[in-house]
Amino acid sequence: MTRPDPSPLAFVPFVSVANMMRLVNATGTESFISELAGYIEEDFRRWPDFDKTPRLASHSRDGVIELMPTADAENYGFKYVNGHPKNTREGYQTVTAFGVLASVATGYPILLSEMTVLTALRTAATSALVGRYLAPKGAQVMAMIGNGAQCEFQALAFRALCGIDRLRLYDTDPAATQKARRNLAARGFTVVICKSAQEAVEGAEIITTCTADKQYATILTDNMVGSGQHINAIGGDCPGKTELHPDILRRAEIFVEYPEQTRIEGEIQQLAPDHPVTELWRVIRGEAPGRSSAEQITLFDSVGFAIEDFSALRYIHAKIGGTDFCEPLDMLADPDDPRDLFGMLERAR
Amino acid sequence: MTRPDPSPLAFVPFVSVANMMRLVNATGTESFISELAGYIEEDFRRWPDFDKTPRLASHSRDGVIELMPTADAENYGFKYVNGHPKNTREGYQTVTAFGVLASVATGYPILLSEMTVLTALRTAATSALVGRYLAPKGAQVMAMIGNGAQCEFQALAFRALCGIDRLRLYDTDPAATQKARRNLAARGFTVVICKSAQEAVEGAEIITTCTADKQYATILTDNMVGSGQHINAIGGDCPGKTELHPDILRRAEIFVEYPEQTRIEGEIQQLAPDHPVTELWRVIRGEAPGRSSAEQITLFDSVGFAIEDFSALRYIHAKIGGTDFCEPLDMLADPDDPRDLFGMLERAR
Repeated sequence: MTRPDPSPLAFVPFVSVANMMRLVNATGTESFISELAGYIEEDFRRWPDFDKTPRLASHSRDGVIELMPTADAENYGFKYVNGHPKNTREGYQTVTAFGVLASVATGYPILLSEMTVLTALRTAATSALVGRYLAPKGAQVMAMIGNGAQCEFQALAFRALCGIDRLRLYDTDPAATQKARRNLAARGFTVVICKSAQEAVEGAEIITTCTADKQYATILTDNMVGSGQHINAIGGDCPGKTELHPDILRRAEIFVEYPEQTRIEGEIQQLAPDHPVTELWRVIRGEAPGRSSAEQITLFDSVGFAIEDFSALRYIHAKIGGTDFCEPLDMLADPDDPRDLFGMLERAR
Repeated sequence: MTRPDPSPLAFVPFVSVANMMRLVNATGTESFISELAGYIEEDFRRWPDFDKTPRLASHSRDGVIELMPTADAENYGFKYVNGHPKNTREGYQTVTAFGVLASVATGYPILLSEMTVLTALRTAATSALVGRYLAPKGAQVMAMIGNGAQCEFQALAFRALCGIDRLRLYDTDPAATQKARRNLAARGFTVVICKSAQEAVEGAEIITTCTADKQYATILTDNMVGSGQHINAIGGDCPGKTELHPDILRRAEIFVEYPEQTRIEGEIQQLAPDHPVTELWRVIRGEAPGRSSAEQITLFDSVGFAIEDFSALRYIHAKIGGTDFCEPLDMLADPDDPRDLFGMLERAR
């Protein structure tokens, strides 16, 4: 039973923030997002194969900490993620995250990864994937209300998947807009800075809202949204935190990830619990219509679901095999004899 | 906003298996268990302060993967743990685990730790802490049925906290018993090897059952348990997995960690859902009686609860401050400007 070296089973590949950034940059951000969207689309197509549960949230005065698990027959994955809007005032981030992919057969983790960067990429990849099914054909202009950490990722994703290359930016904080303009102009976008949300949405085929205040906010009012627009609502993602006036919701065809979770956390927390919504996986499988006319207002009430993180972890796991974008982490005990954990401890003396 | 180096916020202290073993051995296993039991006792005393939920379990054909979160006003903690009884046949362990402690105020993780070794220690520490409240006074002899990975830790914990120094071992697999005898004799215990569970319990004041089969088993039948004994039932810890004949449960005073979870996972899954049980935290606070007579049969129906893991993480976090028993892990992105996650990625190119 003696092994010359600790078995590979004892080690879990770990993707640090530095390695994630290396991997994204080596792949190219837009290619990375496109490939990741492919994994997400694949998993949406086999949606019924997953164990699904609303995320397990622990709320406190200043924020929330969540665990988001899901599993198919082969893999189990979960993400740890926090949301603390006040954090930025003290130089912390609003959202940090990490995740684990494991083998269902043995229960052993097979990947530990940073997910702060990866969540930003998967959120954008999901939005743009959904945009490909719901946005008006030939869309070129996107309004972006809220120019924080998620903004540039959304822009790159919508260019990679939907062909958007003109952006209209607005944020209550002009410094955030300047930051986004700088980053996006350097990436070849045509950027218009707007003085209000009202101005930003003019002439836009797609409206992306990604603000961060933890409150009922009204980023968009009913009069601001015109026929044929697609709304990509990112920021309303926990109880008591919404971005859209309920009148918009009543005029729009609403698409959601997992209704059980979205009714608690999304824009539709403002509506009756039986208000009709369409599950995106049905649209992607061709079992439900997406956009059905040029005049229709479509709304993706995005809250983020565990399966998207699972897809992201699965993608990273496939990418890092045989590369140096990860390092082995001594996270699992591996006694010579599995029943002799104590002997392993004694021999380490 | 520019920082010369990544802020300490970007790094999470990580305790690897190797460092956990170094820490345990540097502290001394019995001292470590005693100190850890002190943290567990402290947290049991302030039980109402915690957010509590039954663990989130994902069951599959061969095992289970669980997330066990809890929080007080200051810290949030969770453990990932699997249970795969068939694993040992392939050289894997039945149980592996790791855990995270985080700040409630910011949502940032402040500790990532292996918990395979640590779980074995906290399970034993909890058992012996409970034993101190429930076992007959002056107990010296413990029967141990099931001589797998948990066995030696239980023995050391019961010596450190309750003064047990004589052990009667039985396992269906004689090799497991030989392994335990070897390890425990080297630690100064008087060990008797028994040919049956029946023989093992003779003359024992405490009976510890820690077997691992995922099934309804009958390790102890009613006739084997005599008046005044304390039963420390460790192995019955998931739906469909029990160790004791229900007649024993009906004769015993039953003590549990968190009834909502124990009724699903513990021995008492065999009883009516309203069968009376006593919560241990009430006993430890002096609000409910523990052992009330020398003749009483007491039973700790142990399944393991998230607060014990929280205590263990809190203990490790306190121990590692300023030491080299941990290493910094680049797990959290830390952009100069928290709203400029994309800029951080661009500058890494």
